[in-house]
Amino acid sequence: MDITFNNDPKLTIFLPFIYFAWHDDVLSKKEITTISDFISSQEWLTKEEKEFLSSKINAGSPPSRSELFHWKEKIDAALASHNKIGNFTELGLLIANAERESFKEEDIQKMAPSFAQFESGLGIMSREVISGFRQKRDTITDKYKTAESFNVTQMTAFLDGSQADIIKTVKKLIGSQEFALNNITDVPEYREKVLKWSKILAKNGLGSYAYPKAHGGKDDIEGYFSIMETLSYHDLSLVIKFGVQFGLWGMSILSLGTEKHYKKYLQAIGKMELIGCFAMTETHHGSNVKGIQTTATYDHKNRSFTIHTPEKYARKEYIGNAANHGEMATVFAKLIIDGKDHGVNAFIVPIRDKGKNTLPGVTIEDCGHKMGLNGVDNGIIYFDNVHIPYENMLDRFAQVSESGEFETPIPSDNRRFFTMLGTLVGGRIGIPRSALAAAKTGLAIAIKYGDKRRQFGPEGGTEVPILNYRMHQRRLMPYLANAYALHFGLQYLTKRFVERTEEEMQEIEALAAGMKAYSTWNTRDTLQECREACGGKGYLSENRIDDLKNDTEIYTTFEGDNTVLMQLTAKNRLGEFRKEFGEMNVATIFNYVLDQAKTTVVEKNPFTTRNTDEEHLKSPEFHLQAFQYREKEIVSTGARRFKKLIDDGLDAFDAANVMHPHMLQIADAYLDRVLLEQFHIQLDKVADEDLKQVLEKLYCLFALNKIEEHKAWYLEQGYMEGSKTKAVRKLVSQLCWEIRQDAVPLVDAFNIPDNCLAPIVTTKSAEA
Amino acid sequence: MDITFNNDPKLTIFLPFIYFAWHDDVLSKKEITTISDFISSQEWLTKEEKEFLSSKINAGSPPSRSELFHWKEKIDAALASHNKIGNFTELGLLIANAERESFKEEDIQKMAPSFAQFESGLGIMSREVISGFRQKRDTITDKYKTAESFNVTQMTAFLDGSQADIIKTVKKLIGSQEFALNNITDVPEYREKVLKWSKILAKNGLGSYAYPKAHGGKDDIEGYFSIMETLSYHDLSLVIKFGVQFGLWGMSILSLGTEKHYKKYLQAIGKMELIGCFAMTETHHGSNVKGIQTTATYDHKNRSFTIHTPEKYARKEYIGNAANHGEMATVFAKLIIDGKDHGVNAFIVPIRDKGKNTLPGVTIEDCGHKMGLNGVDNGIIYFDNVHIPYENMLDRFAQVSESGEFETPIPSDNRRFFTMLGTLVGGRIGIPRSALAAAKTGLAIAIKYGDKRRQFGPEGGTEVPILNYRMHQRRLMPYLANAYALHFGLQYLTKRFVERTEEEMQEIEALAAGMKAYSTWNTRDTLQECREACGGKGYLSENRIDDLKNDTEIYTTFEGDNTVLMQLTAKNRLGEFRKEFGEMNVATIFNYVLDQAKTTVVEKNPFTTRNTDEEHLKSPEFHLQAFQYREKEIVSTGARRFKKLIDDGLDAFDAANVMHPHMLQIADAYLDRVLLEQFHIQLDKVADEDLKQVLEKLYCLFALNKIEEHKAWYLEQGYMEGSKTKAVRKLVSQLCWEIRQDAVPLVDAFNIPDNCLAPIVTTKSAEA
Repeated sequence: MDITFNNDPKLTIFLPFIYFAWHDDVLSKKEITTISDFISSQEWLTKEEKEFLSSKINAGSPPSRSELFHWKEKIDAALASHNKIGNFTELGLLIANAERESFKEEDIQKMAPSFAQFESGLGIMSREVISGFRQKRDTITDKYKTAESFNVTQMTAFLDGSQADIIKTVKKLIGSQEFALNNITDVPEYREKVLKWSKILAKNGLGSYAYPKAHGGKDDIEGYFSIMETLSYHDLSLVIKFGVQFGLWGMSILSLGTEKHYKKYLQAIGKMELIGCFAMTETHHGSNVKGIQTTATYDHKNRSFTIHTPEKYARKEYIGNAANHGEMATVFAKLIIDGKDHGVNAFIVPIRDKGKNTLPGVTIEDCGHKMGLNGVDNGIIYFDNVHIPYENMLDRFAQVSESGEFETPIPSDNRRFFTMLGTLVGGRIGIPRSALAAAKTGLAIAIKYGDKRRQFGPEGGTEVPILNYRMHQRRLMPYLANAYALHFGLQYLTKRFVERTEEEMQEIEALAAGMKAYSTWNTRDTLQECREACGGKGYLSENRIDDLKNDTEIYTTFEGDNTVLMQLTAKNRLGEFRKEFGEMNVATIFNYVLDQAKTTVVEKNPFTTRNTDEEHLKSPEFHLQAFQYREKEIVSTGARRFKKLIDDGLDAFDAANVMHPHMLQIADAYLDRVLLEQFHIQLDKVADEDLKQVLEKLYCLFALNKIEEHKAWYLEQGYMEGSKTKAVRKLVSQLCWEIRQDAVPLVDAFNIPDNCLAPIVTTKSAEA
Repeated sequence: MDITFNNDPKLTIFLPFIYFAWHDDVLSKKEITTISDFISSQEWLTKEEKEFLSSKINAGSPPSRSELFHWKEKIDAALASHNKIGNFTELGLLIANAERESFKEEDIQKMAPSFAQFESGLGIMSREVISGFRQKRDTITDKYKTAESFNVTQMTAFLDGSQADIIKTVKKLIGSQEFALNNITDVPEYREKVLKWSKILAKNGLGSYAYPKAHGGKDDIEGYFSIMETLSYHDLSLVIKFGVQFGLWGMSILSLGTEKHYKKYLQAIGKMELIGCFAMTETHHGSNVKGIQTTATYDHKNRSFTIHTPEKYARKEYIGNAANHGEMATVFAKLIIDGKDHGVNAFIVPIRDKGKNTLPGVTIEDCGHKMGLNGVDNGIIYFDNVHIPYENMLDRFAQVSESGEFETPIPSDNRRFFTMLGTLVGGRIGIPRSALAAAKTGLAIAIKYGDKRRQFGPEGGTEVPILNYRMHQRRLMPYLANAYALHFGLQYLTKRFVERTEEEMQEIEALAAGMKAYSTWNTRDTLQECREACGGKGYLSENRIDDLKNDTEIYTTFEGDNTVLMQLTAKNRLGEFRKEFGEMNVATIFNYVLDQAKTTVVEKNPFTTRNTDEEHLKSPEFHLQAFQYREKEIVSTGARRFKKLIDDGLDAFDAANVMHPHMLQIADAYLDRVLLEQFHIQLDKVADEDLKQVLEKLYCLFALNKIEEHKAWYLEQGYMEGSKTKAVRKLVSQLCWEIRQDAVPLVDAFNIPDNCLAPIVTTKSAEA
């Protein structure tokens, strides 16, 4: 009689090994040889038995499928009989002893060591493989799911605060049928659609919100920003058209002009009856506005100005509302009187008549197709000696006197220039807030999709929502925490701006510049992650990430290139730091030294740098100290490095160049600290315990994630040791896991109108 | 007579302070008070003189513009007279003593300390401000420019190697008028254009390159990849259509079918006379292909199969060529015989007739507008009991016997499934190479633009090419180094694939999976940086970054989601590691321990971990050791962590979930090391000294930039100390600065056809 596993059941002790060899795709020929050799070495097997077993792992003659299936049945039966099986040998013994006792306890004792050595020598993680064999498994991963730990409506109310009413109004409007989104790819059609939408907004009084009551407005600049942010859940071309018309164009009149201009223009602008442009940027001068070349030459005889583009690349470029709809433009040009250059000033220049025909001397080209924002009609404008009347000079900061003299209350051209630009800081509040809304929309889509979409799962079990995967959480949860942090941070910036005093202006400008860069870069990264997190679905335009991503792509460039803006912020911080030092008397120096020494004693002692207690790592005190330490240290080393470069004889321009990357760090550390502080202040304001708890988790994730991002720096400084940074990483993962449970309610709290989300998450069916 | 600066010149010692107070926009009111107070404390001034000076810094009565201008003239004269002026006091003295000796040497000695204290107390960096005052300045930054240190043609030849001929052929074709790019936004028009282009490629014999000579091909798979990569400088929709038709569709026949299929289909496919699809992905099953639900039920009577979509979300989705042009599809479906599921198999299913009408039982929907690749007609396919004849089963790895039995040379369903998928690994070579070409195009555009575009500059000087800014270099140069590293790395991957043996297949699959993820992520990051580096110009579609970015956006998802692919790679590495351990005998264990100990002695001793010598930091030995250490350590801690989780009783699925981020690190460290090694191997092959030198710099930048990216990890491990990681950062900056000089020639060496670049860099005029 031929040997079989059925008639010689003791041989089934090898079944797990043999089955695994054929089933799995990892074992190599060499490993099969290892099994063969081990079988040959077993003295308790007969020659025939050895031959039989060897034939079962001969690569040249694989088992039949039914044979393989039969083996699996035996394995399944053994697995079903025991819950905990630690390795292949144990499993094999269970099979071999299933029907009758093939091996006695004493045999087992004797065989155990050699089998153990054999098994570990194979390098299989038996326990893992065995758990993979099981049909039905209890896993933590597949059971985890959304659970709402707080009241979503309350959270929305907390986020909206005093702006709840206007936010509700705007959401109702953009949630209406009239505002249905439908991926228009035809550029002219898209532009007209956006124009139509803009007019509806104006009709509803949303355009003039920031203008004085006397000129048809509500004198509510905070409301204006809330409108712009809320609109940003919807089409971003509309937001930018809205911003160009009512913000840039209208606010340039309000900020740079005087009462006569307000009277003449503001009402019509607010009603969108007078569409205009903000013509500052030139082809050759974007970031370096001071270098623009367009001229406004004063004509004594007629008391008028002649606006002129002296060479091709001095043309105004990327100008919103220019290609199709604009009738006028605020043009930035160098004022020339009698051949003398009086620096950059602003002028109102008509460019089209009411019939939308371009006026004489004005040439307009279309910027053409862009990555995004194709609903905005950006254009290029050339001026060929265009005459405008005297009163078209926006004359708040400079005038030409009746005798043709240049007059200004600010004698320095430099300072006047920055004062002019400073009044336009509003754009650097509107854009980061718009960017944040886009990031929120992306997060709402990706998180809701991740909660629905299932892929992979334990063998034999159901598939798992992809948001249950740690990696997926790691990709999205920190951005959710950032969104909350920025929400509070940008509310703070807005408040500071609304309540500003003259003295604070420079600080607020620096904060706005930095926040604009910080928020738009955060949106870029958030949406990138959201796109990838939604896989192929994220690539389909109907699911909105396309537009969100491509429309906000330019946010990092316009209203000031981000790297340039971060330099501005850093320059201000360095200035503050120098002043602090400059104004030091002996007492303050003593205090500063004491302060630094305290850091060394309290924060940099070996106990603290190695402290991995969860309680410590989660404490706001630790976070604030770490953030402050980073900010202070980076700014003071920056100041020292810069001074050293200058002292070593480097030209200031070269030194600034070398310092570039350091400057970005200064701004970044400052903004991180501001966001942390503002988030913490909000925590103190929450009354509801449930809300507080989830916000505390987000706060903690924000803080620790930033610390982890900068852990190389902390390690370099000796502020933390490796054991501590590793503990931070672990805690970040843990927090991502915990927050995942509340992730859907946390994006629901943004209360984004359904028609601004994606079909993959709004359709009732399980599209995912 | 009233006091003036002219009639009381000694007072002009204060001019620099006063001028600065009005000129600059940084000095605060408090600082003005400081100046006032200092003036008041000067005993050598009369009461009237003090009053005069105080009036000059009274915020209530600013100087006139002409007065300010006059002061500046005095300052300019003093600056012109002396090259080195260290502070405001020195400058003031020069002005005061310009016409007559207001102060004698002894006065100066006496005054110096109090002035110095005053100046430092103000917190001005005088030297910096003074250099800013100068009209004409010598800076390193503005003089730096492109200089070609090597022969570009030679570099191109070195990069193209044995593939130079086919690359030249393809470049000639895509550089021709017929292939002119023109941003078509109308989807149907764009698709027809891409179809037309594809047919031209086929007509030129490029489609069938990889097919057997007997079937109209050239049997040249390496050539096929070179074609795909070179095409990727041009329109990426064309590349993907090319890949779908000749790669996925054609290669599925070649890899999964047998001779009878080759005969019947391959010629027509290669000529683009038979357009087909690769229908694997389903709405609910993308990454988890094993879970697809489409069925192919065997009919014993007719010896045929019935292809069926059992529920809505089992429809085939994102299928290229499906929406418009495809006539057939390779459909992946579960084979059912007599109610028994035999796992995933592939079948040829006709979907349209020659008149392009959809066949009975087949329903096709358009996927609609996508972020990119809108020239590819992706569609959704539903099958309603579609009958196909017996011979349409692709039967290389499984057949149904005449008696209706399922037969296969690979008994395990699991293993057969992976064997099938393994044959499709080609896509994971084509895509990363296509991605690399897109990154190269982006770099060529951004670097050439950065070399032309000027913005800002030293006061009074000319503006500086933005590529001279350190920050700009830091953003682009590391990606240039990555592009070269990946060029060699992907050539290596291709060679490995072409010359593969059966034994190596798993390793090569893992390498391809990882390289696909690595390269496509690198392209994503490169193009993002390129877009921002080109500012507004980068946002205009005509300048190509729009399409490059949006078309490659899905590269991180298709042919396998990157995070999933990295897991595959990591799993393979862990397997290799376990085997190494598994197969250890005493001698190898001893060697391993010795090896680890050696690392501790040689690489982790205090001298090495603190070694900041440039020679050491630039040595390939240091790079290789650091890369290898990281790879080994991450894989071995990964194995230990995983084992511990399992031993602690976690289900293998849960444990894998926890290990997710660690797994990505394993794959990443492995790929970094492979790229480093391959780059170094190429260095050894360069004969020309100039070429060698610049490639060595790129190699060094690649190595050090990666080390810097992972410095937190090295610091945590104690492999480097803070002083060393700081030195690495500095060296990276230095290398970026040096390579900038050769950056334009280095992208010129890619020899990208002019019509594939952007107007901003190809127009002769200074558009920038």
